[in-house]
Amino acid sequence: MIILGIDPGSHVTGYAFIEKIDRKLKVLEYGVIRCKPKDTLPLRLKHLCSTLRELLTIHEPQVLSIENVFFSVNAKSALILGQARGAILATCMEKDVFVKEYSPKEIKQFAVGRGSASKEQVAWMMQKHYQLKEIPKPHDASDALAAAWACHNDPLLKDEL
Amino acid sequence: MIILGIDPGSHVTGYAFIEKIDRKLKVLEYGVIRCKPKDTLPLRLKHLCSTLRELLTIHEPQVLSIENVFFSVNAKSALILGQARGAILATCMEKDVFVKEYSPKEIKQFAVGRGSASKEQVAWMMQKHYQLKEIPKPHDASDALAAAWACHNDPLLKDEL
Repeated sequence: MIILGIDPGSHVTGYAFIEKIDRKLKVLEYGVIRCKPKDTLPLRLKHLCSTLRELLTIHEPQVLSIENVFFSVNAKSALILGQARGAILATCMEKDVFVKEYSPKEIKQFAVGRGSASKEQVAWMMQKHYQLKEIPKPHDASDALAAAWACHNDPLLKDEL
Repeated sequence: MIILGIDPGSHVTGYAFIEKIDRKLKVLEYGVIRCKPKDTLPLRLKHLCSTLRELLTIHEPQVLSIENVFFSVNAKSALILGQARGAILATCMEKDVFVKEYSPKEIKQFAVGRGSASKEQVAWMMQKHYQLKEIPKPHDASDALAAAWACHNDPLLKDEL
């Protein structure tokens, strides 16, 4: 099973494709999709979705693991983040990728064992869990690895698929 | 030039395709895309975007006219609306449709001449402007007609295209 973890953003979106083969866990690719800061939101969404579409074609994930919406932000940030998130969901749904959502707390719980872990701790644990040569950077990428990790370790996921 | 007006929603999205041929204005199609209320947000976005994609293929608009974000809603509603809006923008940008945004006030100003007009007044004026046989319903559809009307009457649009 191939899992795509995503940390959405309207400027920088982290992604991580992981695969479980037999008992081994393999990181296929991780990184960030960066949009030009001066581009309008529609242009940034276009770049985000076309890059994501290419990655989906290469790796063909079965599941998208994405952070639940964080409600305590203000309406303006919620709207901007929502638009990136909606564009990502629509692009993945076009390819019939099953969507699994976790709260930020759940993701940290799976990743570090503590719902209040810092981004640095998450990145550090991602290096250990995935046996990476270095600490994954930037945080958007390590957060995406953590989202994928949560999904990979979710005991209830198999019943839903 | 073919203009697509959209009134986005995560459950019901209004749309209107209009065309200016010589000096005549023609409504090609208007209506709503309804999602199943019990479906999850990813499934609703999938339905919204696949239906929109079909409509874009039929009418091939050059411009999308869409309401600017309304900031006074709370963070939760902003996020849900944002996701529908982002999915719509991404779908239109895939086809290189030029995006033009107007505030709700500007749209009403173009439609009725008053930024504080009611939805009923907007619908009534849409019937007059487009010489429709009946008052367009529901409000999601008449609001989409109004968004298209604003764009059609925008004196600055031609410089941007």
